[in-house]
Amino acid sequence: MNGKAMTAAIALSVGMGFGFDALAQERKPEDQIKMRKGALTVMSWNFGVIGAMAKGQRPYDQAEAVKRAEAVAFASHLPWEAFGPGTDTGDTRALPAIWQQGDKFKAAQERLQSETAKLVTAAKSGDAGQLKSQFGATAKACANCHDDFRKK
Amino acid sequence: MNGKAMTAAIALSVGMGFGFDALAQERKPEDQIKMRKGALTVMSWNFGVIGAMAKGQRPYDQAEAVKRAEAVAFASHLPWEAFGPGTDTGDTRALPAIWQQGDKFKAAQERLQSETAKLVTAAKSGDAGQLKSQFGATAKACANCHDDFRKK
Repeated sequence: MNGKAMTAAIALSVGMGFGFDALAQERKPEDQIKMRKGALTVMSWNFGVIGAMAKGQRPYDQAEAVKRAEAVAFASHLPWEAFGPGTDTGDTRALPAIWQQGDKFKAAQERLQSETAKLVTAAKSGDAGQLKSQFGATAKACANCHDDFRKK
Repeated sequence: MNGKAMTAAIALSVGMGFGFDALAQERKPEDQIKMRKGALTVMSWNFGVIGAMAKGQRPYDQAEAVKRAEAVAFASHLPWEAFGPGTDTGDTRALPAIWQQGDKFKAAQERLQSETAKLVTAAKSGDAGQLKSQFGATAKACANCHDDFRKK
């Protein structure tokens, strides 16, 4: 990325309300990509345990569900700062829409965070049906973002 | 890994108090490796922000330090379940000592978790000196594990 493109990308990122702080500027694009993939992997791994419970592939266990839901909720806040300028290429499936439709991308993050918070509540309820239902709603929030912002 | 080796590895993992539950048995070795690297990347990324503050490369900011320390502390609990049987080869720098010296590996995890919990306390204190000191102690806990259990 040349200087002009970098300036434009930074202006865009600030304008779209990403909340990029100095961090995304300090870190190399490849490290940002590694970070966001790492955070999404942590989210997926833990969400998968709840999915296995929801699908009856694993016995329902409230304490385990709470632990996993908390990990999912925590992770749902982590990847986004690592979509800084210059991270649209390389070892990534990120689509240009992330930077072109920043408000929509931000809304997708907030939907995910809202659903994962509800997942913690559902897990704590001790009601397997509620957990299953909220697993579905959370999975839709994952898919919502992947559909628009991740290469197939 | 053949059946006999797998049985031995599972017996070892149970015996060494890893607390492997069914999860590590359910997930493919390559997915476990991806998960633990992801969790360690999340830890390192956030710890790096505190390091930059400790080294004066970034202005001290209590709220930012607390947020980062909490992410580090949270992540310090995540990688370990993903060192299941059969994950000693592939895209990993994990050394055989992890499976050969399970008690020592477990102690290294606990030291890290203890230091990262103290990092949260130090960040919340609002005292930059305390944060810097605890950054050092935490970095030693990282190095302690890397020295013995990670390829150079």
